[in-house]
Amino acid sequence: MWGHANGKGAMENHATPLKPERMTYGEDPAKRVELGVTEKLRLDCGVSLGPFTMAYQTYGALNADKSNAILICHALTGDHYVADEIHPITGKRGWWDLMVGPGKPIDTDRFFVISSNVLGGCQGTTGPKDIDLATGKPYGLSFPVITIGDMVRAQKQLVDYLCIDKLFLVIGGSMGAMQVLEWAARYPDDVFAACPVAGAARHSAQNIAFHEVGRQAIMADPDWQAGDYLNHGTDPKRGLSVARMAAHITYLSEAALHRKFGRRLQDREGLTYGFDADFQVESYLRHQGSTFVDRFDANSYLYITRAMDYFDLAAEHGGNLSAAFDGAKTRFCVISFSSDWLFPTPESRAVVHALNAVAANVSFVEVESDKGHDAFLLDEPELFDVMTGFINGSAAIRGLT
Amino acid sequence: MWGHANGKGAMENHATPLKPERMTYGEDPAKRVELGVTEKLRLDCGVSLGPFTMAYQTYGALNADKSNAILICHALTGDHYVADEIHPITGKRGWWDLMVGPGKPIDTDRFFVISSNVLGGCQGTTGPKDIDLATGKPYGLSFPVITIGDMVRAQKQLVDYLCIDKLFLVIGGSMGAMQVLEWAARYPDDVFAACPVAGAARHSAQNIAFHEVGRQAIMADPDWQAGDYLNHGTDPKRGLSVARMAAHITYLSEAALHRKFGRRLQDREGLTYGFDADFQVESYLRHQGSTFVDRFDANSYLYITRAMDYFDLAAEHGGNLSAAFDGAKTRFCVISFSSDWLFPTPESRAVVHALNAVAANVSFVEVESDKGHDAFLLDEPELFDVMTGFINGSAAIRGLT
Repeated sequence: MWGHANGKGAMENHATPLKPERMTYGEDPAKRVELGVTEKLRLDCGVSLGPFTMAYQTYGALNADKSNAILICHALTGDHYVADEIHPITGKRGWWDLMVGPGKPIDTDRFFVISSNVLGGCQGTTGPKDIDLATGKPYGLSFPVITIGDMVRAQKQLVDYLCIDKLFLVIGGSMGAMQVLEWAARYPDDVFAACPVAGAARHSAQNIAFHEVGRQAIMADPDWQAGDYLNHGTDPKRGLSVARMAAHITYLSEAALHRKFGRRLQDREGLTYGFDADFQVESYLRHQGSTFVDRFDANSYLYITRAMDYFDLAAEHGGNLSAAFDGAKTRFCVISFSSDWLFPTPESRAVVHALNAVAANVSFVEVESDKGHDAFLLDEPELFDVMTGFINGSAAIRGLT
Repeated sequence: MWGHANGKGAMENHATPLKPERMTYGEDPAKRVELGVTEKLRLDCGVSLGPFTMAYQTYGALNADKSNAILICHALTGDHYVADEIHPITGKRGWWDLMVGPGKPIDTDRFFVISSNVLGGCQGTTGPKDIDLATGKPYGLSFPVITIGDMVRAQKQLVDYLCIDKLFLVIGGSMGAMQVLEWAARYPDDVFAACPVAGAARHSAQNIAFHEVGRQAIMADPDWQAGDYLNHGTDPKRGLSVARMAAHITYLSEAALHRKFGRRLQDREGLTYGFDADFQVESYLRHQGSTFVDRFDANSYLYITRAMDYFDLAAEHGGNLSAAFDGAKTRFCVISFSSDWLFPTPESRAVVHALNAVAANVSFVEVESDKGHDAFLLDEPELFDVMTGFINGSAAIRGLT
């Protein structure tokens, strides 16, 4: 389904999208809309972008007073396929299928769920792999550097296009949590409840460092061709694979790696005294790298990691994180995981302290888990309980039954 | 100074090496000896290696009864230049200059200090970049995979060559600590005192994972040429640089990175909205990568990381770490750092528990430091105090005044 919106602003004649039918693997169940047509999107870097395509999904039905919409924001390598549809590239279910669906914490029988691919992404929303209409060639590195703020302003255009004035909930994990915080800070009147999971109000030095390693791995691949690989017919798969492997380690805890793999060998009785994947953990990492390159664009990886590095909500508000939330009426539920060392609990606590300082309505839960950062994607009963409680409590106050 | 030893066994006519004179940058102050000449070194992989060259350094003078020798074992990217000499490649002082020298904790006025480049290394001891006499070409990947045990057996040949029956102390950090534990387990009668710093008795799944990322980065570089780059006239600098960058992050704590760099920008007023090193931490990492490739061989990096991955002292003793130290008379001082997440304190504690189980003489200190794994290389007063206390106490018992 393709839509078209004449710039920002609600389109009153917009029909509520239908719940998508279950698709066959390979078919793309996503919707697309062209945004920034009459009024371009002014990016933080100074460039005006438009028109641009936004790929998105919806689940459930919007109620009559449009008060039951939930926006889910995805992480670095996520996309808009969040529920039980079959992903057109991976053939797997959406990344938050455990959380989103009929009867699940984000209950599509009750809520109208929206998820979109971020600006700069590679799953349908305009990004560096797409054609620059000005040149007729893929953007590559001529694509403007985007920020979390840009991603959120683009999402706001989508929400406007869907004629939703106020979102019931904005929720997301990791980079998704950054977007949640940006939404709450930028559009405080348009967000009834906000749930940043395993996130932070700024990217730490260590996180920037890991991202830089990933970018250098991509840029070190001769097939990257200074970012112009699409015009050269090459594909920097090796570099992107290494970047993914390095990043993947940071998504897991040491305890989870130990529990899952320890020093167990991969399909062999003893050490081979060579450089094959003797250990299960090596084999697993190689698999993570090699499957990732089939679904992700190397330049998108550069752009999205850069957006995360640049995120510093306090800096956007004169160095004072509380100022970002001054006067906020949004209800917050901040969630972290005890074994997450990429976005550790103190980062979430800093957000909570900033919210407390302006007397915002905030609850905070550190979920006990040994699964590391990735816990937000996994079957983590305490997370589900917290989420269900927060959503149901907020829904009651919002008058949603 | 070149020496020559006819296989294992003491050479009675060996003269104590002189204290090396201060050298000009570019000159190599190291000594070399050919080992494994009449009797090859039987490696764990089954290959017999010999003759091979061992590059080493000595500092101070061996006393009359040869009871004051200290062997220092280096870490992954270290070498035998440990004190105040000028490194022939980097032009910098040795890596443990803070610790080793006249009046320092490892006092070269009192002790005869030996350090050697590990087997498989690239600073003078035989490794994959050296010529295989059988083919007349560099070994490359035909070099046999070596283990920590192999490194230690090679060092034992050097110590025998130096006519030292019993080392007063074997000491080292990180991979050096692995060698210390291997020495104590393999040659319990030849080690009076042992000090493994920031080490472990086995490499964890997370550590194997990080090493695998580094290896994959090297192997992804087309200039690696399936390991045969020396014959192709290429140099996989980009891959090795990425490997070093990824590893370097693991050597520092999040707190240290935050303190040193935070989100501070590198020589610029604001974000550039590009992929240059906007942040100081990016610039620092790139520098770490680019300087490393000038002093290290990519294949050596593969071999030495593999040796660490393979290290599992308990597995060598029927799965029982205590059995590795059964009957040990060696005095142990096990040291860890509170912010070291690469070789965290529980790994050292496991060693201590194993030593306690066999009633070994062991003291254990977790040094409070926010400097991460690299703390063992840095100016860390508590480390110096602990080391001085342990060395002086052990020296008194050994009858060294």
